[in-house]
Amino acid sequence: MSMRPSALLTDFYQLSMAQSYWQAGIHDRNAVFHVFFRRNPIRDRYVVAAGLQRVIDFLNDFHFTSEDIDYLASLSQTKFSKDFLVYLKKLRFTGDIDAAPEGSVVFANEPLLRIRAPLALCQLLETPLVNALNFSSAVATMASRFRMLAPDDLLFEFGLRRAQGPDGGLTASRSAYLGGFDATSNTLAGKLFHIPVIGTMAHSFIMAFDDEKTAFETYAALNPDNVILLVDTYDTLKGVDRAIAIPNLKAIRLDSGDLNALSKAAREKLDRAGLSHVKIFASGDIHETMLAELKKQRAPIDGWGVGTHLSTSYEQPALDMVYKLGAIEKNGQFSYRLKRSDNNRKTSDPGILQVKRLTENKRWLRDVIYDIQSPVISNATAEDLLKPIFQSGRLVYSSVKLSQSREYCLQQVQQYHASPDFVVERDAVLIDLKNSLLKKYDE
Amino acid sequence: MSMRPSALLTDFYQLSMAQSYWQAGIHDRNAVFHVFFRRNPIRDRYVVAAGLQRVIDFLNDFHFTSEDIDYLASLSQTKFSKDFLVYLKKLRFTGDIDAAPEGSVVFANEPLLRIRAPLALCQLLETPLVNALNFSSAVATMASRFRMLAPDDLLFEFGLRRAQGPDGGLTASRSAYLGGFDATSNTLAGKLFHIPVIGTMAHSFIMAFDDEKTAFETYAALNPDNVILLVDTYDTLKGVDRAIAIPNLKAIRLDSGDLNALSKAAREKLDRAGLSHVKIFASGDIHETMLAELKKQRAPIDGWGVGTHLSTSYEQPALDMVYKLGAIEKNGQFSYRLKRSDNNRKTSDPGILQVKRLTENKRWLRDVIYDIQSPVISNATAEDLLKPIFQSGRLVYSSVKLSQSREYCLQQVQQYHASPDFVVERDAVLIDLKNSLLKKYDE
Repeated sequence: MSMRPSALLTDFYQLSMAQSYWQAGIHDRNAVFHVFFRRNPIRDRYVVAAGLQRVIDFLNDFHFTSEDIDYLASLSQTKFSKDFLVYLKKLRFTGDIDAAPEGSVVFANEPLLRIRAPLALCQLLETPLVNALNFSSAVATMASRFRMLAPDDLLFEFGLRRAQGPDGGLTASRSAYLGGFDATSNTLAGKLFHIPVIGTMAHSFIMAFDDEKTAFETYAALNPDNVILLVDTYDTLKGVDRAIAIPNLKAIRLDSGDLNALSKAAREKLDRAGLSHVKIFASGDIHETMLAELKKQRAPIDGWGVGTHLSTSYEQPALDMVYKLGAIEKNGQFSYRLKRSDNNRKTSDPGILQVKRLTENKRWLRDVIYDIQSPVISNATAEDLLKPIFQSGRLVYSSVKLSQSREYCLQQVQQYHASPDFVVERDAVLIDLKNSLLKKYDE
Repeated sequence: MSMRPSALLTDFYQLSMAQSYWQAGIHDRNAVFHVFFRRNPIRDRYVVAAGLQRVIDFLNDFHFTSEDIDYLASLSQTKFSKDFLVYLKKLRFTGDIDAAPEGSVVFANEPLLRIRAPLALCQLLETPLVNALNFSSAVATMASRFRMLAPDDLLFEFGLRRAQGPDGGLTASRSAYLGGFDATSNTLAGKLFHIPVIGTMAHSFIMAFDDEKTAFETYAALNPDNVILLVDTYDTLKGVDRAIAIPNLKAIRLDSGDLNALSKAAREKLDRAGLSHVKIFASGDIHETMLAELKKQRAPIDGWGVGTHLSTSYEQPALDMVYKLGAIEKNGQFSYRLKRSDNNRKTSDPGILQVKRLTENKRWLRDVIYDIQSPVISNATAEDLLKPIFQSGRLVYSSVKLSQSREYCLQQVQQYHASPDFVVERDAVLIDLKNSLLKKYDE
């Protein structure tokens, strides 16, 4: 799915600032902005970058429609001049984008996307770019953490009903798969993103029949290749007994109650009945802590349906992703800028930033954030995190299949976990640059 | 904005269950399902119902396209029969919907939407209906709580960049306005939903100029009617002094730091300069607890920009909204059903449910959940919560303007807060009905 193409999907102040730049005659100065998040998310240190495809789709079709322009002309809180609206009407994406490919593991303060474009254009793109990357990355990160907790289990994303609107749900399904899930229940996501779709039955299916036995028998007769029975509608262990009596049983699903005790009791019943090949799936408000705890208790659960907690990124519903000016062109030269804060963590890095990832024997040594005008030299194997995506408005990046990004992500996460001493640093020249700018502001 | 019309926006098991109903010949039996949430949200007891307009748009256009059908035919995990796909292709919404109008205050376990329709159709609609209502209601509820904390202040929704995708953001902006906010920064939401849009300037605007003074002067010269200056880019109180020197100053905005201390210091500076008419706005990760605390400290803040915490419903990213079967037709009569649970709270109510709201002198006495086949009789003024929306597939509800729903919501919330003894009860007949069904399951 592509992001809705409307260029109006932006904060209103971007438009009023763009007009002020235009009126002041500085709208066409080249500016460099970076997208990054300031804090690593809870529980672990890494973020899975996601949402770049959405950025690409959006920028490829970036334009204001006549209807958009009419709407802006109708507003009274900021008066848009006719000439500025003509400028907007003609505006297309003409800049450079360098970004971490989807599935990359990235860290706090590292740019995951850098844009170099005319100032007014950069400003208008702040909101849609952060919107595209922030939530996608949050869900992909959470999905990746689930995958790490249950490396060999089946992981199903079940969150559409509680997701944040239709495309909140679509983004969540896509990002969950990218982060390492096996399948989704979201049929439209299956169609749009070529993700395997899965499904069994709901309590209402059981309740639609007069009793559980009839419901199970009917379902199994009609779906002989997919006999996965939900056993907890009335009495879970009685449900397990009834499921055992059904031919071709493939799996049972537990959706409530004490999943540790119930899965153990169900496993015993199944094994005793000679059904050790029958799997046990669990669902029902599963979250990270719960899954970790059930793993610790060795609950014999083979597959997990994760809904609300994944699709809304419940435990941390947003990364604190920001978009900060690093440099602006003036008289043909880039002048470096930073946003200062009493809170040192919130003071941004100046420059035109890139990240060098140094590795040795497939282990990551460190990431170095640096300014590309003073490149980092190193003897270790090194790769730049940000890859060219757009150059002068032209797409130069060959989009990869989502399943390939998923493989890349799994590999990145494994490399990260295999690198216990890994750190993120700022290059010494960058630190000097920052300190000298801070000093200047103090004067 | 209307929900994407694709009928594939549903959990896959809804489709495989629908086929099983169809194969078993029970797909056309009338069924009654209720949408409700099981727990009141954090901090307060009420929910603002929202999202009905999205449900209406979706049902008005509910159909499977040829492309959708082709996708389903291509799947191997569940084989869909040709005849079933023909049935799906012809399927339209033909049922009844009764629902609480947007802006209604509702409570845990009360249905906020009831559907009566053929069983297979009901099943297919579970996911999109819950998706439409759950997040909208969560954000409207949170917006309403902010409004209660700051009844006389300006409240701006600023959350698009951190929202959960483009229409996560659109839904959030619409729901925030419905719940009592004054305006949004989301320009597309302004256009689509006729919400006032607002905006000032970003740090990047200040940073685009060589110094803060030049940035302020330029902005004020170009926007003489809207001189709202962001003062915290480099040094907040110096920024306030520079803002004071600018003609036509209307307001300053603080976006970081100790908002209590800074707003008091800024107020003093402004007043001393004879600018007591100049307002102070605050933003920057504002959340409920923070706003309540700043109110308690009497921080002189006149307007609030609320972003991430509102647009992602951060403190409770999802209501636990569910969709449960209450009754199914059999031999021309409704047979009542419930989902049982060891957890009593999760045991659903059987029947065809409605809620009577009893009031006296504009104060709410109580809500009574009842089965419409055994109506509640009462002497108090009473109104049914659920209103007819669709009858036999025909829309019978006149959609109201969003601004009217907002007024209705403000009034509902006030009535609720003016009703300290208010309770939600189940009708005695309903309790008997439930107990007798539970007893039957025990046999």
